[in-house]
Amino acid sequence: MLEYKAPLRDIRFIIDEVLDSGAVYETLPGYEEATPDLMAAIIEEGAKFAEGVLSPLNQSGDEEGCSWSEDGVKTPAGFADAYRQFVENGWPSLSADPEFGGQGMPNMLGIVINEMVGTANWSWLMYPGLSHGCIKTLEAHGSDEQKARYLPKLVAGEWTGTMCLTEAQCGSDLGLLRTRAEPQADGSYAITGTKIFISAGEHDMAGNIVHIVLARLPDAPEGTKGISLFVVPKFTVNEDSSLSERNAVHCASIEKKMGIKASATCVMNFDGATGYLIGEPNRGLNLMFTFMNTARIGTAIQGLAHAELSYQGALRYARERLAMRSLTGPKNPEGAADPIIVHPDVRRMLLTQKAIAEGSRAMLYYLAQLGDVVDRGDETRAKQADDLMALLTPIAKAFVTEAGFEAANHGVQIYGGHGFIREWGMEQIVRDARIAMLYEGTTGIQALDLLGRKVLGSGGKLLTAFTDHVGEFIAAHDDEAVVEFLEPLGRYKDEWLRLSLAVGEKAMSNADEAGAAAVDYLMYAGYVTLGYFWARMAVVAQAKLAAGEDDKDFYEAKLHTARFYFQRLLPRADAHRAALESGADNLMAMPEALFAL
Amino acid sequence: MLEYKAPLRDIRFIIDEVLDSGAVYETLPGYEEATPDLMAAIIEEGAKFAEGVLSPLNQSGDEEGCSWSEDGVKTPAGFADAYRQFVENGWPSLSADPEFGGQGMPNMLGIVINEMVGTANWSWLMYPGLSHGCIKTLEAHGSDEQKARYLPKLVAGEWTGTMCLTEAQCGSDLGLLRTRAEPQADGSYAITGTKIFISAGEHDMAGNIVHIVLARLPDAPEGTKGISLFVVPKFTVNEDSSLSERNAVHCASIEKKMGIKASATCVMNFDGATGYLIGEPNRGLNLMFTFMNTARIGTAIQGLAHAELSYQGALRYARERLAMRSLTGPKNPEGAADPIIVHPDVRRMLLTQKAIAEGSRAMLYYLAQLGDVVDRGDETRAKQADDLMALLTPIAKAFVTEAGFEAANHGVQIYGGHGFIREWGMEQIVRDARIAMLYEGTTGIQALDLLGRKVLGSGGKLLTAFTDHVGEFIAAHDDEAVVEFLEPLGRYKDEWLRLSLAVGEKAMSNADEAGAAAVDYLMYAGYVTLGYFWARMAVVAQAKLAAGEDDKDFYEAKLHTARFYFQRLLPRADAHRAALESGADNLMAMPEALFAL
Repeated sequence: MLEYKAPLRDIRFIIDEVLDSGAVYETLPGYEEATPDLMAAIIEEGAKFAEGVLSPLNQSGDEEGCSWSEDGVKTPAGFADAYRQFVENGWPSLSADPEFGGQGMPNMLGIVINEMVGTANWSWLMYPGLSHGCIKTLEAHGSDEQKARYLPKLVAGEWTGTMCLTEAQCGSDLGLLRTRAEPQADGSYAITGTKIFISAGEHDMAGNIVHIVLARLPDAPEGTKGISLFVVPKFTVNEDSSLSERNAVHCASIEKKMGIKASATCVMNFDGATGYLIGEPNRGLNLMFTFMNTARIGTAIQGLAHAELSYQGALRYARERLAMRSLTGPKNPEGAADPIIVHPDVRRMLLTQKAIAEGSRAMLYYLAQLGDVVDRGDETRAKQADDLMALLTPIAKAFVTEAGFEAANHGVQIYGGHGFIREWGMEQIVRDARIAMLYEGTTGIQALDLLGRKVLGSGGKLLTAFTDHVGEFIAAHDDEAVVEFLEPLGRYKDEWLRLSLAVGEKAMSNADEAGAAAVDYLMYAGYVTLGYFWARMAVVAQAKLAAGEDDKDFYEAKLHTARFYFQRLLPRADAHRAALESGADNLMAMPEALFAL
Repeated sequence: MLEYKAPLRDIRFIIDEVLDSGAVYETLPGYEEATPDLMAAIIEEGAKFAEGVLSPLNQSGDEEGCSWSEDGVKTPAGFADAYRQFVENGWPSLSADPEFGGQGMPNMLGIVINEMVGTANWSWLMYPGLSHGCIKTLEAHGSDEQKARYLPKLVAGEWTGTMCLTEAQCGSDLGLLRTRAEPQADGSYAITGTKIFISAGEHDMAGNIVHIVLARLPDAPEGTKGISLFVVPKFTVNEDSSLSERNAVHCASIEKKMGIKASATCVMNFDGATGYLIGEPNRGLNLMFTFMNTARIGTAIQGLAHAELSYQGALRYARERLAMRSLTGPKNPEGAADPIIVHPDVRRMLLTQKAIAEGSRAMLYYLAQLGDVVDRGDETRAKQADDLMALLTPIAKAFVTEAGFEAANHGVQIYGGHGFIREWGMEQIVRDARIAMLYEGTTGIQALDLLGRKVLGSGGKLLTAFTDHVGEFIAAHDDEAVVEFLEPLGRYKDEWLRLSLAVGEKAMSNADEAGAAAVDYLMYAGYVTLGYFWARMAVVAQAKLAAGEDDKDFYEAKLHTARFYFQRLLPRADAHRAALESGADNLMAMPEALFAL
């Protein structure tokens, strides 16, 4: 069985040494108590829960899956009990607002816990994970009365939440949605329609499920400007938060999926269900956008999680499995063959996984920290952080999930034929990882957001804010010992700016030029951004080694991995550059009818 | 349900117009009857069988899987009946030797049929497909008596065959195998040991199963030089090919796998089973190598098959699914949104699939035709063809299966969230495709074969034989109309030679340099080789258009796709070049202990 061990040393390295979180949180009102020591203690507790309770349920959950009956959805053995422990230990409220019973810790800490929980068992994380969007929506846009009614139970984890957006005919294009909301005499709405792909839409873990539903009012304009937001609880709720009646919302079936099989993906029927409007009518999509970034970062973690888990499994195997002799002579002469970690190509795959996992961890923690600055920093700092988040979030979501899928596949490859067999657990990681490039906005949607809305839409300002930041970092570390990282980083950063200008110019005369460049542009940006985080890690590691600090091996490993990244992975950006520079004609000139020939 | 339609126009284009098979087979003794018309007629019949009988069983087979009991293995509903039809229609004997009841058609035709059958249902193809190695082994190395006893029934498809190589502790490194063969008084051997990953090792489709087994004689040297080859039938066989006794070989269990679930992957126990030596003792591995190339090409087809099937499914969806408006204005103004094929990024993914499928088809048919020249051409031609095959086979096996997996993933991506749901059939293609990079030699093993044995091992001769061939092709088509393809092809070809010299030089002082470069070298070679076949197709298409022939749209589509390939995919070779040129240090310098930090 695949066992997860939380990489506590690396987590601490990024939080404390790379992101200097102690100094950052000290200056953010309300987060002063989030000292390095307190965070480390909480993370260690989270690691125990992830390793001891959730990791053992990962393969069994995949094997058993969820089952549906008219009475509801049954989650796999152990899932509900693990959730009970999760709630008892107060994990759901960790980074929630104290006003509603939260512990008020930084979101970054929540992200770290989610990483460990999700690496141990991504399917399981989907149940508490989906509450996040529901809570954020109510916090930001609910009336005081709605907040009082729903948030304490949601924050405590007694209830869970969902986001009901997708319908059969619309996923990326929510303008096409048809679910209707009819005003009732009592001020509520009767919600009617069918939503699909509703994660945690029904399950056996919590007393109530609070659905946030996108629907149209009778007089709503067509398209995205006519969508409103409603809260629709499974059981309606009395003023004192006690449960009232079973609402007319039911799970009609669950999907058979490629992966994350222990996560119930529900078809939800709303048959005149009682719902309550959140915020202004017809503003639903705008309201949703307010926490889009945090939701995307939450999904980006999946790429990191699967890269990490696959790396752990593959490394263990590569050290134990014997096959062939090293090309440079036996390394295990008394054994029948050498362990496969002696072979350069096995190391290439392992280092690719390691570089993706650790680099993504730095990127995502940084984004999570930015989120905390947005929430609590002064206006100037918050604005800067928000701009950086706006640019980097689509990169993180799409690039990290694509890279995580690659890493998961290397894990299978290192196992050879055994990787294809279910009992080893490696192929499950590939199946689980595949969804991450699809939900919460596909890679293509993220790429349009990055290039169209963020880079071109800001006239380049969001991009230069980041590249200036990178430039300052390079200038601040003008040291021979790290020039091997900073020189190429500077070169790719400058080229990124040049490429953006060139694409922008072409797109002015033909909008398809932006669409044709978008995904390669995003992947280019992803490799350069990951390069920036590897350079930051390398600079810290180099400084620690120069200062003669303990943990020499850890820092040496960072430098080796950084070197691998810059020499072996970063050059992939060049292929994406060539593809995006090739323009739209090679995609658009072929008439549609010719595709079938 | 995903329906397969055989791409007959493209198949004909490659066989007749690109590879000029009529002229080739006319000159090969015994293949004179394989005229274009006869081949086309046979292919059309094969297409009907694949489309009508096998395609409908693909998803149901995945869903049901195989089941094991002490009595044997039950294949999914419809599989055995389809096999009965296959045998009745004479398909198994199509390209087999007439001496044993075969129809004596070219191997290329067999490859075309396998492509269609395998695209419709790869799991099903595994049952007749595994017989191939068994038949080839007996044809090449069996005694006359063994041939007479086994081949007629195998060729007719009444029996099937297997290859029993892998054991739990050894896959790529067969030198570690432990199965033992004890000589018996009657000249037979008692075979004892456990083999794993035996495809079609047990099933309910045929009256007997003939296992080709690698095992060690009592006095055998250690390692690969002590392996002998045996034939071990499920039921021993009388001289007249009637069945005698149930042999002591049994299927102990079948594997639960990521994909190809309808193909039984068996653990086979040999408990003193009666076996018969094939060829000389201790020469087993050498004997196996004689048909390694055809087996690898057979597996390479899987990459082509999955790229084609995923393309067909994705194209259908991209034309029907409505989401968003084209960035350049509505293309379907009366509809609620535009079909997603108007979006550049969807076209990018579709064209990637199309370029991989059609380019791989040209590459693999070419290799199959070379195989026929090796078998039947005069000594000079046979030697030339054999050299080309030696070089190109590992490229085809590894590159086409890697590219096919990428293509299968694009198919899922085009479906968005629906791609992750089983009922659409798209995620099955990804799961089925994943095995192809693992079995019959992993990508890493193929890469070592290519760079180590073939390129460096021949002192560059095998490579220059091919690059000269490419050079002659370029020189022969010095035409402004195709210079956009031939100019970059020439450039990459020259660079390939330069890179090979550079790697060879480094490897002389450090063998790990070859291992560190191998997979990127293979991928580089793959992109250039596919470029050669796209250039060949473009040259033919251009000539047909210039000559004003019919089917203008078909040839235009070829030129568009070739352009896409050269502008968008071929530049990926540069990233592989940079990685392979970066040397072994970034993989080997890190001490093993540091991987865990």
